[in-house]
Amino acid sequence: MSDTLRVALAGLGTVGAGVIRVLDTNRDLITRRAGRPIEIVAVSARDRHKDRGVDLSRFEWLDDTAGLAALDADVVVELIGGSDGPALSLARTAIGRGKGVVTANKAMLAHHGLELASAAEAAGVPLKFEAAVAGGIPVIKGLREGAAANAIDRVYGILNGTCNFILSKMEAEGRDFADVLAEAQALGFAEADPSFDIDGIDAAHKLSILAALAFGSQPAFADVACHGIREVLAADIAEAAALGYRIRLVGVAEANGGGLFQRVHPHLVPLHHPLAHVAGSTNAVVADGNFVGRLLFQGAGAGEGPTASAVVADLIDIARGEFGPPFAMPAAALEQRPAADSGDRRGRAYVRFTVADRVGVLAEIAAAMRDAGVSIESLIQRGANPDGSVRVVIVTHDGPERSVAQALERLRGSQSLASQPLWMHILD
Amino acid sequence: MSDTLRVALAGLGTVGAGVIRVLDTNRDLITRRAGRPIEIVAVSARDRHKDRGVDLSRFEWLDDTAGLAALDADVVVELIGGSDGPALSLARTAIGRGKGVVTANKAMLAHHGLELASAAEAAGVPLKFEAAVAGGIPVIKGLREGAAANAIDRVYGILNGTCNFILSKMEAEGRDFADVLAEAQALGFAEADPSFDIDGIDAAHKLSILAALAFGSQPAFADVACHGIREVLAADIAEAAALGYRIRLVGVAEANGGGLFQRVHPHLVPLHHPLAHVAGSTNAVVADGNFVGRLLFQGAGAGEGPTASAVVADLIDIARGEFGPPFAMPAAALEQRPAADSGDRRGRAYVRFTVADRVGVLAEIAAAMRDAGVSIESLIQRGANPDGSVRVVIVTHDGPERSVAQALERLRGSQSLASQPLWMHILD
Repeated sequence: MSDTLRVALAGLGTVGAGVIRVLDTNRDLITRRAGRPIEIVAVSARDRHKDRGVDLSRFEWLDDTAGLAALDADVVVELIGGSDGPALSLARTAIGRGKGVVTANKAMLAHHGLELASAAEAAGVPLKFEAAVAGGIPVIKGLREGAAANAIDRVYGILNGTCNFILSKMEAEGRDFADVLAEAQALGFAEADPSFDIDGIDAAHKLSILAALAFGSQPAFADVACHGIREVLAADIAEAAALGYRIRLVGVAEANGGGLFQRVHPHLVPLHHPLAHVAGSTNAVVADGNFVGRLLFQGAGAGEGPTASAVVADLIDIARGEFGPPFAMPAAALEQRPAADSGDRRGRAYVRFTVADRVGVLAEIAAAMRDAGVSIESLIQRGANPDGSVRVVIVTHDGPERSVAQALERLRGSQSLASQPLWMHILD
Repeated sequence: MSDTLRVALAGLGTVGAGVIRVLDTNRDLITRRAGRPIEIVAVSARDRHKDRGVDLSRFEWLDDTAGLAALDADVVVELIGGSDGPALSLARTAIGRGKGVVTANKAMLAHHGLELASAAEAAGVPLKFEAAVAGGIPVIKGLREGAAANAIDRVYGILNGTCNFILSKMEAEGRDFADVLAEAQALGFAEADPSFDIDGIDAAHKLSILAALAFGSQPAFADVACHGIREVLAADIAEAAALGYRIRLVGVAEANGGGLFQRVHPHLVPLHHPLAHVAGSTNAVVADGNFVGRLLFQGAGAGEGPTASAVVADLIDIARGEFGPPFAMPAAALEQRPAADSGDRRGRAYVRFTVADRVGVLAEIAAAMRDAGVSIESLIQRGANPDGSVRVVIVTHDGPERSVAQALERLRGSQSLASQPLWMHILD
C-alpha cells in the first residue's frame, strides 16, 4: 500500500487550487492517514498563466481537459462544473478507462449520477462526491455509511450558503432581498447570474443526491418542487420573527408510502429547531432515522478550504481502498420511486397576501380559506403600505396542503390581490 | 459478495437487544446497503431466560461468552462493557482467531485501544467502535474519514448525556444538583453509582478516543484532566445565565506544540455557540480543521436505538469491505505525544467563591488575584446565603491558566473561604 495514488486534476478554480493547497499543507498527515502518498501528476484548466497562488510547474499541464483521462493516473478529480459538456465527457471517459472519479459537481450527479454510478461499479472503480453536497460537511458519508442501519423518514437541511447568507443578513439588518443580493454580489458571495442559487436549483441538485442516498432511490432531480427566495420580503422575516420563527431556504425529502416527496422552499423554522440557528453561509443537514433519531451535520457549505477538504477526504478513502457503490447500494438496486403528491402532505402554512385596501378583501380571503377547508390559527393585518396596499398574513392550523392550494386557486385572478400570495411551509 | 456476514453477539443488555431489533426491522434495507445479508448466528449473555422483547431461539446460545471467539463467525460484537475482564479477553481472542471486532466499549478502547488496533491490523481484521463515542452520531467516522484531509486544531464536545440531562434540568428548573441527580436515577437516566458519568470519567474515555483519531496520537486516557459536575450549583447556572452563558460539561482536546492537551471540565458556553443549545441527553462534537473550519455533529448520545444504529453501521462497513486501520492510520504511526501543561493555555475563567461574610474577605481575594497577575473582568458579590456565607463570582480577562491556579493556590487554606472555590473555563 505504499504505492502513490496518482491524481489528475481538471479545473483550477477556487476549489481546484484549494485541493493543491490542502495536499501541500497537510502532506505528511495525509500520507499517514491515507497509508500512502497522494500526488497530483497532471492538471488542466482554461488559462495556464493565471496566478492561483500555487506552483503548477511541477505538474504536467494539459490544455485539453479530455486528455487527463488518457494519462497514467489512478483518479481524475473533476472540478470543471456543469451538468453536461466537458465535465460529463471527462467523467465518462475516465471511468471507461478504469480510473476513479472524484467530483464536486452536483448538477452532473443530479442529472447523470445513476449512469455514472452504474459505469463506475461495472468498471470496479470509485466514484465519490462528498464535495458535491454541503461543502466540507461529511454528509454524503454520514448518510451512505453513518446512518446506514436506519430507514430514513426524512432528510432535510440548509443546502445553499448564498441563500442563507442573504436571508440571515435580511434578518439581522431588516433589509430587503434585492438590496442584500446586490451587496452579496459585490462581495463575491453571490454570482453575477444568481438564479441557480436564489431560485433553489443548486439546493435541489444537492437534495436529489441526498434523497438517493437516504432512500435507496434513483436520483430524481426533475421531481424536486423548487421555489427560491426572491419573493421573501423583509416584512415576512419580521412577521415570522414575531411568531417565533426564522425563514430559511430548506430542502426536504421524505418517504411517503412508496413515493418520495422532494421540495426546496422557504420555510418558517421554529427557534427551538437547530436549523433556526444556522446563520450566514453555513450549511446544515438533518436526517431522521428510525433507530438513530435525529442526526445533525453542520459546517461550512462552500468555499475553497471546506470544499477542497471534502475532495481530499474522498481521495484518502480511495487511497485506503475504502470505497464501494457510490449511492450506498448497487445502482441496479436503487428504486425508481414516484414523486409523491404534495397535496397529501399535512402541515402548517404561512401565507402572506398583499391586497388592496378596500372593503370586503378580508372577507374574500377568509371565505376562500373556509370553502377550501383551511383552518386558520392566526391572521394579522397591518396598516397600509406606502403604496396603499395592505399586508395580510395567515398562519394555518395543521392540515393537508391540498386545501391551502385550493384556497389560493380560488383567489387566483382576484382583483383584491395586488400581487401573488407567498406561501411558506412551517417546519415541524 | 453475497456471502452472509456472520455475527456473534456478546452482551444482551439494552444495546445488544437493540442490535437484534435493528437487524430484524431494517433487514431488507440493510442487506441492500451492505451488499450481502448480515446475520447473527450466536449470542451470549448472563441470563438466558430474561425477557428482552426479541426472539433469541433462532440463535445459538453460549453460556460462556469466551466461546463466541471459537465459533464459525466473521465478526464478534462485544457489548459486555468494562475496560478489562471478559470484554478485553473476548476482543483479544477474537482478533487472535482472525475475527473482526465491533465494540461500544469506550473504557476498553481508552485503556487498550492501541494494543487491540495493533493486533487487528496484524491479523488483517476490522476493529470498529462507532458506538463507543456519542452513541448514534457518526463522529468516529467523521474524524477518521470525513475530516481526514485536515490538521485538527481542537476537538471538543458534549460527550455525556447524563451530565447534560442533569445540567439542562438544573438550568430549566432552577434546581440543585443532588435533587436532579436523584430524579435522574429514579427515571433510569443515571446509574445507581453515577460517578463514571458525573465525575467525567465516561466523557474522558470518549475524549481520549476522539483525540487519538483527530491528532494521530496514541490514546492517552491517563492524560485527561478530569473534573465533573458535582460542585456546580443552581446559583452558578443562574450567574452564568446572567452573563450570557450556559454551563455544559465539555471535553476538549487540542494540539499544543508537540504536546496534546486533554480536559473534561464544566465550561461556560456562550449563547451564540451551538453547544449552548444542546439540551437534554443529546451529544454534540465539534472539530476545528485547518481547511474545513468548524464541523459540528449532533444527535442522540446514548440509548438503545442510537447506539445499536452505530453498531450496525460498523457491521455494514465490514460487510462492504470498507474498513482499515481503526485509529485512521496504522497503530505504529500513532505518535506518543506528551501531555501539554494546562498552565500554558490562555483563556477566560469563571471562579466562584463561597466566603465568610466579614470585613476584608474581598480584599484578600482581590489581592491574591492581583499578586498572581490575574486581570478581573467582572466581580459579582451577592447578599448573604441563608447559612451566612456569601457568594463571590469573578470572571477574568483572557490570560494564562497558570495565573488563576496561582491565585487559588495563594488562597488555599484561607479562613475566609467557606468551601473550595469552583473554577470553570469559558469556551471561546
